[in-house]
Amino acid sequence: MDSDPGFVAAVEEAKAGFEEGGVPIGACLVSKEGKILGRGRNMRVQKKSATLHAEISTLENSGRLPASAYIGATMYTSLSPCDMCTGACILYKVARVVIGENKTFIGGEAYLKQRGIEVIVLENKECQDLMSRFIEEKPNVWNEDIGE
Amino acid sequence: MDSDPGFVAAVEEAKAGFEEGGVPIGACLVSKEGKILGRGRNMRVQKKSATLHAEISTLENSGRLPASAYIGATMYTSLSPCDMCTGACILYKVARVVIGENKTFIGGEAYLKQRGIEVIVLENKECQDLMSRFIEEKPNVWNEDIGE
Ligand SMILES: [Ca+2]
Ligand SMILES: [Ca+2]
Ligand SMILES: [Zn+2]
Ligand SMILES: [Zn+2]
Repeated sequence: MDSDPGFVAAVEEAKAGFEEGGVPIGACLVSKEGKILGRGRNMRVQKKSATLHAEISTLENSGRLPASAYIGATMYTSLSPCDMCTGACILYKVARVVIGENKTFIGGEAYLKQRGIEVIVLENKECQDLMSRFIEEKPNVWNEDIGE
Repeated sequence: MDSDPGFVAAVEEAKAGFEEGGVPIGACLVSKEGKILGRGRNMRVQKKSATLHAEISTLENSGRLPASAYIGATMYTSLSPCDMCTGACILYKVARVVIGENKTFIGGEAYLKQRGIEVIVLENKECQDLMSRFIEEKPNVWNEDIGE
């Protein structure tokens, strides 16, 4: 599953965010049929945004869609989703959330499951390393991003 | 509380959204000290946005802020917040959510309370009427906005 095109795209987004000096979290939304609907990354630093977390950027970049487009969809994200992004996945009723890692941060995984969404955690080393390097370099930006 | 400047601003935003042909939901974030940090409205129609609900627009328009800025803050919103906007209020730990009405739609009120956020519902007739007119005119846009 680490080689799913959606996960590969999410990691590419995370790396691009790191290179830009941003919060290195990426995501990608894939339809039931396997089509990439959108991808994106955290834009706190790049756009001075309080809401463009990776998953929100991804939903935004996927455009205005009817509810049917999200049926059976998978949200791939490089890090366990915060409460806002958890809620966004619930709003649009994605079927599954595939998470690169949750060692750095554990978000709404239990609540996603409680609301009927499948959750898979990959424990991906590359995602973990990106976050470790980022948090060591910019702890204040990270705390701001998780409301701490 | 219907005359709080933050609620008045939220209703103004909702009305502006209606006039633009959009989803008529508005919001406003007010600091503990009573300062308006930001205000906004649903931008699904205007910006073809899947994520700029009123509360998300408001948090975005409030800009990048340290966690301390949200302490004791109130999110005023013309309608009961969906799961995404509920999660956003939890992420930033606002103290209170003041809701214009929840007759049209009941979102994450119970979960907000469970997570320690005060919830007040005003049963405001003006907010209810705006939503009734909108849903009668554009049921499909409304369903898309709530992922139905
Ligand atoms: Ca892990
Ligand atoms: Ca009501
Ligand atoms: Zn998030
Ligand atoms: Zn919402």
